[in-house]
Amino acid sequence: MAEEKTPWSGRFSEVPSKFAQEFGASLPFDKRLNLQDIAGSIAHAKMLANCNIISDQDCAVILDGLAKIKDEIERGLFVFDIEDEDIHMAIEKRLIALIGEAGGRLHSARSRNDQVALDVHLFTKECALAIMQKINELREVILKVAQSNVDVILPGYTHMQKAQPVLFSHHILTYFHMLSRDFNRFKQCYIASDVCPLGAGALAGTPHAIDRDFVADELGFTKLYNNSMDAVSDRDFVIDFIYAASICMMHISRLCEELIYWASSDFGYITFADEYSTGSSIMPNKKNPDFCELIRGKVGRVYGDLTAILTTMKAIPLAYNKDMQEDKEPLFDAFDTCFGSLNILAPMLDTLQINADVMRISCETGYIEATDLADYLVRKGLAFRDAHAIVGHIVGDCVEKGISLQDLSLEDLQKFSELFEVDALEVIKLENVVNSRKSYGATSYDCVKVQIDECKNQLDKDIAQIKDK
Amino acid sequence: MAEEKTPWSGRFSEVPSKFAQEFGASLPFDKRLNLQDIAGSIAHAKMLANCNIISDQDCAVILDGLAKIKDEIERGLFVFDIEDEDIHMAIEKRLIALIGEAGGRLHSARSRNDQVALDVHLFTKECALAIMQKINELREVILKVAQSNVDVILPGYTHMQKAQPVLFSHHILTYFHMLSRDFNRFKQCYIASDVCPLGAGALAGTPHAIDRDFVADELGFTKLYNNSMDAVSDRDFVIDFIYAASICMMHISRLCEELIYWASSDFGYITFADEYSTGSSIMPNKKNPDFCELIRGKVGRVYGDLTAILTTMKAIPLAYNKDMQEDKEPLFDAFDTCFGSLNILAPMLDTLQINADVMRISCETGYIEATDLADYLVRKGLAFRDAHAIVGHIVGDCVEKGISLQDLSLEDLQKFSELFEVDALEVIKLENVVNSRKSYGATSYDCVKVQIDECKNQLDKDIAQIKDK
Amino acid sequence: MAEEKTPWSGRFSEVPSKFAQEFGASLPFDKRLNLQDIAGSIAHAKMLANCNIISDQDCAVILDGLAKIKDEIERGLFVFDIEDEDIHMAIEKRLIALIGEAGGRLHSARSRNDQVALDVHLFTKECALAIMQKINELREVILKVAQSNVDVILPGYTHMQKAQPVLFSHHILTYFHMLSRDFNRFKQCYIASDVCPLGAGALAGTPHAIDRDFVADELGFTKLYNNSMDAVSDRDFVIDFIYAASICMMHISRLCEELIYWASSDFGYITFADEYSTGSSIMPNKKNPDFCELIRGKVGRVYGDLTAILTTMKAIPLAYNKDMQEDKEPLFDAFDTCFGSLNILAPMLDTLQINADVMRISCETGYIEATDLADYLVRKGLAFRDAHAIVGHIVGDCVEKGISLQDLSLEDLQKFSELFEVDALEVIKLENVVNSRKSYGATSYDCVKVQIDECKNQLDKDIAQIKDK
Amino acid sequence: MAEEKTPWSGRFSEVPSKFAQEFGASLPFDKRLNLQDIAGSIAHAKMLANCNIISDQDCAVILDGLAKIKDEIERGLFVFDIEDEDIHMAIEKRLIALIGEAGGRLHSARSRNDQVALDVHLFTKECALAIMQKINELREVILKVAQSNVDVILPGYTHMQKAQPVLFSHHILTYFHMLSRDFNRFKQCYIASDVCPLGAGALAGTPHAIDRDFVADELGFTKLYNNSMDAVSDRDFVIDFIYAASICMMHISRLCEELIYWASSDFGYITFADEYSTGSSIMPNKKNPDFCELIRGKVGRVYGDLTAILTTMKAIPLAYNKDMQEDKEPLFDAFDTCFGSLNILAPMLDTLQINADVMRISCETGYIEATDLADYLVRKGLAFRDAHAIVGHIVGDCVEKGISLQDLSLEDLQKFSELFEVDALEVIKLENVVNSRKSYGATSYDCVKVQIDECKNQLDKDIAQIKDK
Repeated sequence: MAEEKTPWSGRFSEVPSKFAQEFGASLPFDKRLNLQDIAGSIAHAKMLANCNIISDQDCAVILDGLAKIKDEIERGLFVFDIEDEDIHMAIEKRLIALIGEAGGRLHSARSRNDQVALDVHLFTKECALAIMQKINELREVILKVAQSNVDVILPGYTHMQKAQPVLFSHHILTYFHMLSRDFNRFKQCYIASDVCPLGAGALAGTPHAIDRDFVADELGFTKLYNNSMDAVSDRDFVIDFIYAASICMMHISRLCEELIYWASSDFGYITFADEYSTGSSIMPNKKNPDFCELIRGKVGRVYGDLTAILTTMKAIPLAYNKDMQEDKEPLFDAFDTCFGSLNILAPMLDTLQINADVMRISCETGYIEATDLADYLVRKGLAFRDAHAIVGHIVGDCVEKGISLQDLSLEDLQKFSELFEVDALEVIKLENVVNSRKSYGATSYDCVKVQIDECKNQLDKDIAQIKDK
Repeated sequence: MAEEKTPWSGRFSEVPSKFAQEFGASLPFDKRLNLQDIAGSIAHAKMLANCNIISDQDCAVILDGLAKIKDEIERGLFVFDIEDEDIHMAIEKRLIALIGEAGGRLHSARSRNDQVALDVHLFTKECALAIMQKINELREVILKVAQSNVDVILPGYTHMQKAQPVLFSHHILTYFHMLSRDFNRFKQCYIASDVCPLGAGALAGTPHAIDRDFVADELGFTKLYNNSMDAVSDRDFVIDFIYAASICMMHISRLCEELIYWASSDFGYITFADEYSTGSSIMPNKKNPDFCELIRGKVGRVYGDLTAILTTMKAIPLAYNKDMQEDKEPLFDAFDTCFGSLNILAPMLDTLQINADVMRISCETGYIEATDLADYLVRKGLAFRDAHAIVGHIVGDCVEKGISLQDLSLEDLQKFSELFEVDALEVIKLENVVNSRKSYGATSYDCVKVQIDECKNQLDKDIAQIKDK
Repeated sequence: MAEEKTPWSGRFSEVPSKFAQEFGASLPFDKRLNLQDIAGSIAHAKMLANCNIISDQDCAVILDGLAKIKDEIERGLFVFDIEDEDIHMAIEKRLIALIGEAGGRLHSARSRNDQVALDVHLFTKECALAIMQKINELREVILKVAQSNVDVILPGYTHMQKAQPVLFSHHILTYFHMLSRDFNRFKQCYIASDVCPLGAGALAGTPHAIDRDFVADELGFTKLYNNSMDAVSDRDFVIDFIYAASICMMHISRLCEELIYWASSDFGYITFADEYSTGSSIMPNKKNPDFCELIRGKVGRVYGDLTAILTTMKAIPLAYNKDMQEDKEPLFDAFDTCFGSLNILAPMLDTLQINADVMRISCETGYIEATDLADYLVRKGLAFRDAHAIVGHIVGDCVEKGISLQDLSLEDLQKFSELFEVDALEVIKLENVVNSRKSYGATSYDCVKVQIDECKNQLDKDIAQIKDK
Repeated sequence: MAEEKTPWSGRFSEVPSKFAQEFGASLPFDKRLNLQDIAGSIAHAKMLANCNIISDQDCAVILDGLAKIKDEIERGLFVFDIEDEDIHMAIEKRLIALIGEAGGRLHSARSRNDQVALDVHLFTKECALAIMQKINELREVILKVAQSNVDVILPGYTHMQKAQPVLFSHHILTYFHMLSRDFNRFKQCYIASDVCPLGAGALAGTPHAIDRDFVADELGFTKLYNNSMDAVSDRDFVIDFIYAASICMMHISRLCEELIYWASSDFGYITFADEYSTGSSIMPNKKNPDFCELIRGKVGRVYGDLTAILTTMKAIPLAYNKDMQEDKEPLFDAFDTCFGSLNILAPMLDTLQINADVMRISCETGYIEATDLADYLVRKGLAFRDAHAIVGHIVGDCVEKGISLQDLSLEDLQKFSELFEVDALEVIKLENVVNSRKSYGATSYDCVKVQIDECKNQLDKDIAQIKDK
């Protein structure tokens, strides 16, 4: 990106081939920055006038022209011509066409290097905010689902083997916490992109007596880059955003994986609403969890975006290199994918049918109360190893007979150890197994109630944080 | 992708939201497979008629309808409606609209799972061939540049330090060899995608008495998948393609890196033609190597495509999952990027100005003949270590005086060692330094002539290989 | 890597800090190349003598010294001292210590740049062969498992929803085919690494009258690099290897994913042997599929190795740069991981218990015969849509009653349509559903028998291919 | 990782093969967590006693045993036996061997799932702090180099073409700012890992009346996980760390790229100290920038670590899966690489020789004052385009004559335009060109002085931040 590029066509004898032009042009994708580019130009023009670099008259004409262009774009009338190469040139050319020479003066004390940096900062800030909003919506749904199903019991798995019964609400809230961390990560992205690069010129600053604070204020930035070479060569904030999207997608890929399996007839724990699955006319019980699969698949593309931008930025020297034009598409793609995935997930979870009975039966056939039964014997004074051996025999016997621990009577238990008393039957009731886990953050009903309150408070704060932005 | 999906809309009570529809739709990108989809349908229809699964009458009508659709697409009249979700559905719906019920019968003995697999195979085969073609064009240019500058001498670098003089032709031919390996890699991609999946149905094959060989012959496939589940779940050939593109881009990123530095005024080894650089009206010597930078930057996106598809395919169970819809965009992007980069590089190299004088001066000021001077002393009987010490002093002296080894007289040399005789001056002539390296594959003029002949032969063979495909 | 590095310590006044030394040293990992380095030196010494560059006497002494060093290494007596920086220097120094000056002459006409390239080529060739061997062992086990369970019926899934019944043998053979492609990919790696770089010197070839063919023959190479700069700067063969390992790991991650879920009590399709799972003393039915999870997790590290080497090679100029020292660890890691995973999988599959009854029951409760029942009605003349509607009602009725289609009598069916005749009951027998799919590569028993024969033939050929290497 | 794994060996009939054992064992790498594991156990034991879950007597014996083990490890006497599988088991077994049954009671109310999570949290916190420390050291050196060379002028590049003169101090401070962002990113990592997972048990919490706050206080954690499933399944903090290392490595790869080129004889801007380069005995001017190349190459492995962990975590269900054992090696590798690179860079920069004269000459031969000369004419009233044309002619003339703009007299200039007056000669003095850029963050001497003060203040604050941790 060369600030002096406009006039070179007069100097060079040959016209670039059409292919080369298209290969080099960023307009097909950076036109998406049109609103940011116009906003940046408006602030720049006001500052130039304020600093007496252009006249108030010029400024007024420029603002008028930019308003017209914005209107043309919004009404679909603006012609994006690939010959203009990028969005900055496209708008500048149109401005000059509309208002004449004053349009050219807008480019005073500005280079395409700091201009594009500005546009990308503005865009990334908006993206971060939009995702924070969507994350909050999804957290709200998760909280609602947790509350509505607060006492549903589900087998907790490790190694995809049933391990201990947990509350469904406890399980699903794990995703709330992942998303809380995602919220914070995007908040850091917001802060990272909230630094104004305009005024850095091509790389060295500008000889004009500009007022960088004025521009920053106009555009809502709270900080300025304090090194002009850093301002035009920094894309950390873009990479931070794509990274935040990557880890967010990783989180929801875990949720989608669970939903896909839970929805298979082998588990049967949940049923998707019709609008979030595709079915079969002849197998009414078959519902393909298309969206969950698609989101799980899309984690790949965001990881790919991250690889792309990190690779591009590797070992490129200061200050600006054309390589950096490759920053935009991964940013756009990561935003679209992450935003879209969150946007689908929220209503999908909201309409999910939780099959509590199936979950409960699955607990019982998994003998996941066995550990608590052994602990019972330990409390009665038996050595840990002996207690385990006895309960191992009991479960083995149940497996053979095809019954669950819940089917056993006190007499049945006492055949294995005389230490069993009537409270042993209580101990292995699923509710009791769950509710015995009372350490802070554990799965008992009381703990989960506390947890829900904490989540609610956190969410309220996070919603408040972004309300005025 | 469910073959029974079409009619489900009647079964489900709710209409998917517009957002969900767009999020799930592949039409915006898979419409690029329209020609492949039509070609596949033509072959399938002929086979169905040939096997008496549909009537010849139906077949004729179908072929007619498909021809009309192809024409509509080519003339830009076909309406791609996102409600059709994907290209298969879009074409099928249009076919039924055009020819009525017979259009529905085209879908006999076929599922969307094997249909999309077919389309992607056909597309990938064409991509592989197109890239092989472009690689050959670039190799041709490299060979031409090597031949035209066969005896230009350039400093060979290791660690970005001048190490030994080499022929420019030898240096540039290194890229010929990289591209030869790329050619072979894409040839393997061609072979990998030259396997016909049609007939696999959704995953289990079909009860219809179809003739898979017929379809394969019609479409120019030389092999069939011999397991239907493999046929619908395999995307290796896509990944192989993206990998081949990745390593090809890596190669040309190395070339671009060299070109960028060589074109800086600090090196000055080359000058880009005006149409492949952007300049400055006031600094006529400044020419930004935009395309080289852009290509170097674009290696990132292809690596990203590779990360994306590998991630997507990780740990997904058999046979078809919607995740796999994410295979197409990385494929398209890797093809476009690699094809485009090769397509720019060939004419850029072809129009490159080689500044032989600058390269020669750079050799001399680098004292890269010093090793040969030390070897001279070793041949005269001096111990290796002593020879090095003496030459170290000579070079040190030259550095101090600001002269090159080429400036030294015999007397100058003899001040350092009496072993120097008149042939020492010959030994350090750049041409002699270069031409002394006569081992097979070395940089001497004679060796490079042999190498050029080998390259020419190899290229001729590779051109012949793809001529009839 | 500078061939003249040895003596610089005398030149420079300061001693590198210990940390810097360790940071720069490759010995901690490249010592793994010791056998390759010695083999390369043996061949090089013989060639030097054969070309009269060193005396036969020197050669004999060198070979003797190298034999001693090899013996020291094998007996664990060799001291790898980080001050030697890399394996080449470590062995060279020891050689000189053992045999004196002649040891120094071994380095004639050789640079560390072509020496390390040689070692890595030799190592990669061996790795490729070792993996090909392991792949064949795993394919053999898969084939055996397929044969032993040839007629076991399993629900075929798409979207993790039961779709159509397939033979377990058909399903598992899908992995045979993936591995066949892996075999071919590693074969290409073998070919790619079977090119001898020795003789390229630091980058330009050597002035000595060496015989590169001699060395290649000694070491079993079938080709020579024909450009010395390519010889020292090429790492394609390493990347090809890591890529082949990546896609192979992706394949087995899919298998592991299926095994993990099949082994959960929710599916119950398989039971791991005790030595390939970890259990619980109190829940005898709980068996953690640790190895499958670990292998699934390890796909990450191999993808990481691929990212690493591709990133490292991006945009580095010719000919040798120290960056390339980073090629070895990803190579070693990819080999160890892929080899180890294959090595565990083969016996794990071999000892797997297939729970055919559970799979069968899962088919029946999935109503996966429904499609064939609808097809029956279509063959009886009913419109596709009407047939679907009728079967939809039948399945809905069964779901409600908690019975399977197999439980229906002819009378039951006829309540829904008079077109049902006694053969309808035959049509929906699972065996018949499976065996009706007779297209080439389909899941019927006959087709799978053919497929097994093809696999056997292919495997025999592939085993023969590597027998003599 | 199964908390009940210890005793299973008695249950299973077969012994795992040695290979399987080694493949599954994490001890070879997780032994690095030994200090963290012991610290965690000490805190856990104290808490158990405090909560009356174990006796004070037991606690004392346990603490004594752990102290002995720590001592054994520090003195290299501890035997890490791969049969113990992981560090937790190795220490537990040794503890029981040392102190008998009480050692077994240490495992009360704890699972290996929360134990390993704890160890990794403690380790990551320390890593983050150590890197923050190293970043500050490097920033300190950069600041020092900037101050010592505050008025050295260097060509500022865009597109690797000389664009505008900048202060060397301004240029190098760009890296200070990158590292400031890195500092903040690692600070976020520190915060993210500063959450105590102990008490989560295997996944559901524990029935014991434990005191999680007590443990957290003992170990210096400021927060607790408030969901037990989140506590054992979360690895975000590890990924955040590896990401922070990735972007930090990217930054320093840019610096290394510049240093490598600046050190080549083509630029000659800098000279490395002998201990940070490797030289040639016969080419005293040749110094390979090995460490810079190595660091540039090592960015690959950290990107690879990031790919690895992101891939591993994709789509794995809750709560704990063995896949997660793969979290440690990328963490260790990313830490070692990033720490080591920073640790080399600081003294390397500190000992760097800045060749101010070479940089100055490079400015003059690059005609980078041309833009300012054109601006001069614009200020004199000439149209932008005309001014550019005139200066283009002047530069063209100089290029032809082989002189710099600095060589021109007023008369020379006036031949091209009568608008030139004596102050024109002032305008193009390099110092004046640089110092004319006075906007905030620009490259003028005054601005850079301000910038240096800001950097110093920021660094002081950041040093203070980590002093007490």
